[in-house]
Amino acid sequence: MGDSPGESLIVGGEVSKLVEQAKELQEAAASLISRTSREEDALRQRVASLDSRIKSLRSSINNDKLNCKLEEELVRARYVLSEGDAAAFLPSKSHGRFLRMFLGPINVRANRKDVQLKVKEEYNNFRDRTAYLFLCLPSLLLMLRSRIWDGCLPALPVQLYQAWLLYLYTGLALRENILRVNGSDIRPWWIKHHYCAMAMALISLTWEIERGPDCAQKQRGVELFLKWAIMQGVAMILQNRYQRQRLYTRIALGKARRMDVVWGETAGVEGQLLLLCPILFVLQGFEAYVGVLLLKTALAGFSSDWQVITCGILLIIMAVGNFANTVQTLVTKSRVKAKIKKGKSRQELNQGSGDKNL
Amino acid sequence: MGDSPGESLIVGGEVSKLVEQAKELQEAAASLISRTSREEDALRQRVASLDSRIKSLRSSINNDKLNCKLEEELVRARYVLSEGDAAAFLPSKSHGRFLRMFLGPINVRANRKDVQLKVKEEYNNFRDRTAYLFLCLPSLLLMLRSRIWDGCLPALPVQLYQAWLLYLYTGLALRENILRVNGSDIRPWWIKHHYCAMAMALISLTWEIERGPDCAQKQRGVELFLKWAIMQGVAMILQNRYQRQRLYTRIALGKARRMDVVWGETAGVEGQLLLLCPILFVLQGFEAYVGVLLLKTALAGFSSDWQVITCGILLIIMAVGNFANTVQTLVTKSRVKAKIKKGKSRQELNQGSGDKNL
Repeated sequence: MGDSPGESLIVGGEVSKLVEQAKELQEAAASLISRTSREEDALRQRVASLDSRIKSLRSSINNDKLNCKLEEELVRARYVLSEGDAAAFLPSKSHGRFLRMFLGPINVRANRKDVQLKVKEEYNNFRDRTAYLFLCLPSLLLMLRSRIWDGCLPALPVQLYQAWLLYLYTGLALRENILRVNGSDIRPWWIKHHYCAMAMALISLTWEIERGPDCAQKQRGVELFLKWAIMQGVAMILQNRYQRQRLYTRIALGKARRMDVVWGETAGVEGQLLLLCPILFVLQGFEAYVGVLLLKTALAGFSSDWQVITCGILLIIMAVGNFANTVQTLVTKSRVKAKIKKGKSRQELNQGSGDKNL
Repeated sequence: MGDSPGESLIVGGEVSKLVEQAKELQEAAASLISRTSREEDALRQRVASLDSRIKSLRSSINNDKLNCKLEEELVRARYVLSEGDAAAFLPSKSHGRFLRMFLGPINVRANRKDVQLKVKEEYNNFRDRTAYLFLCLPSLLLMLRSRIWDGCLPALPVQLYQAWLLYLYTGLALRENILRVNGSDIRPWWIKHHYCAMAMALISLTWEIERGPDCAQKQRGVELFLKWAIMQGVAMILQNRYQRQRLYTRIALGKARRMDVVWGETAGVEGQLLLLCPILFVLQGFEAYVGVLLLKTALAGFSSDWQVITCGILLIIMAVGNFANTVQTLVTKSRVKAKIKKGKSRQELNQGSGDKNL
């Protein structure tokens, strides 16, 4: 017997062992996957049925006004279900058209709570980072315009900024849709608001940045847009700070599920709300003002491109939508507060009567 | 005892039962998740170690030229591992910057093979649908230009088309990155090619579509771009058709894993390749020609915008990259073919000697 046949026999034995193991692993994987999905399906059914029973009991208690404490317990039960590991087995929201359009039918729901929280945390960080850029980039453009560019913006830097805006809003819309699938109850308006902003960024890219003798007049729209962006940046930074604080407070109080996004108007603690609300209303007013101004420019015939008209309309829509949402949130807030107060006084009453019974 | 306290006692019992059940379900979910992830980790380790052993044995066999059949068996073992359910436990490719930029750290890897195949199938359908639009939209624009618009394209329809291109290429790049994470061995160049195309669509949006007396001259670039898009559409339709056929053939032969994407130049069966190759080379030549023409226009001073220069350079880069990839694929193909032929003749030889041994 030569060296080579012996060697190849050894190698052959090794090879058939590996082939055997590959088949074994394939079978192990198949059985693990099928067993896991069976168990998960069973758990999913149990969670869904408990969830619907809690809901129906809550609605029946709502009518019966004496059972404040029972309702609290039900809220807590629902919280256990929706905030812990069982949340992965609650019926998931559909992915929605936007995600399907860009990503196809891939699943973006994380099963594990820690992964979901990482996604949420990264979303907050993304918003923080971009808020500073949102403030700096238009400020820089306006500063360079008066210092270096003699009051007339060149096209390229503005267009780069607009392309960045388009990326930013697309990224935000995708991430918010992903958060929604992962159980966050982000307000639908904020996602729609970002669709509008995406459309505006796209349209503004096709907008000719004209240079020439009457530059200041023709670039009035761009200038107003940049100033609005600066205010938006300030508001975003304040919102991010306060809302994160508020979210942590709510989590600590066990009221908010950690996947909640409270973007926008629902910002925090009393004193902070007093600061933020006027800024938000002024911003919304300015947004609508810029929109009207753009429409006026178009009607006056300075630049009758369709872009000017569409951007004007979009800004007005966003301003009105933001305003309606802010007011709605404030109304909900005051109602909740009234309810809590009522609940407290009732509790005190109950405790009082309890004392009497002693 | 009144009715209400009795009722509330019953409701209270129901509530505490639900709270109890919520806690139980939470625990069941936690234990299922931790057990599953433990088992998955264990399986992942076993799959990874087997995979690396197969690889090292294959490389040692490669040196030893007698063991053709053993290598084939190893290929089959690797195929069992990578094509079946065990594939979900193979070490996954990193998500890459592009996906992280748009989606954040969410996991887009599907665990189950049928979901992965659904994603792949949807990607093919997306490509099919868009290939027809890719052909129709620019044809329509050029037809309307000569029939209705008197040889001068208006800005809005062209810009809508460019915005669609931007969406299309972003969607393709996102989907291809997702496919890559899910185990497809799509060539990196095709993803990079789509990044270039995204950049070009974005830039073309900022490109002024000038109208005026010398419209035909100024719109020469746009016209060439549209003509190139029509050719690209024809090539895409042919490629899609042939590659799907070829993929099915390869799957049937057990050679390709079903997640493979053979976009582009690696198209199919002998006769089809004879048809497709010239079209691809002509297309690439035309792509480079349009690029050079754009650079020429810019240098001649007709429109010295940076957009024209950048688009020209991007087109030339894409043409050269596509050409290099096509040639590389053809070379690999002919090498594989030579190897198969060699293998066959050796097999015949072996069989012959086997016969002699009888």
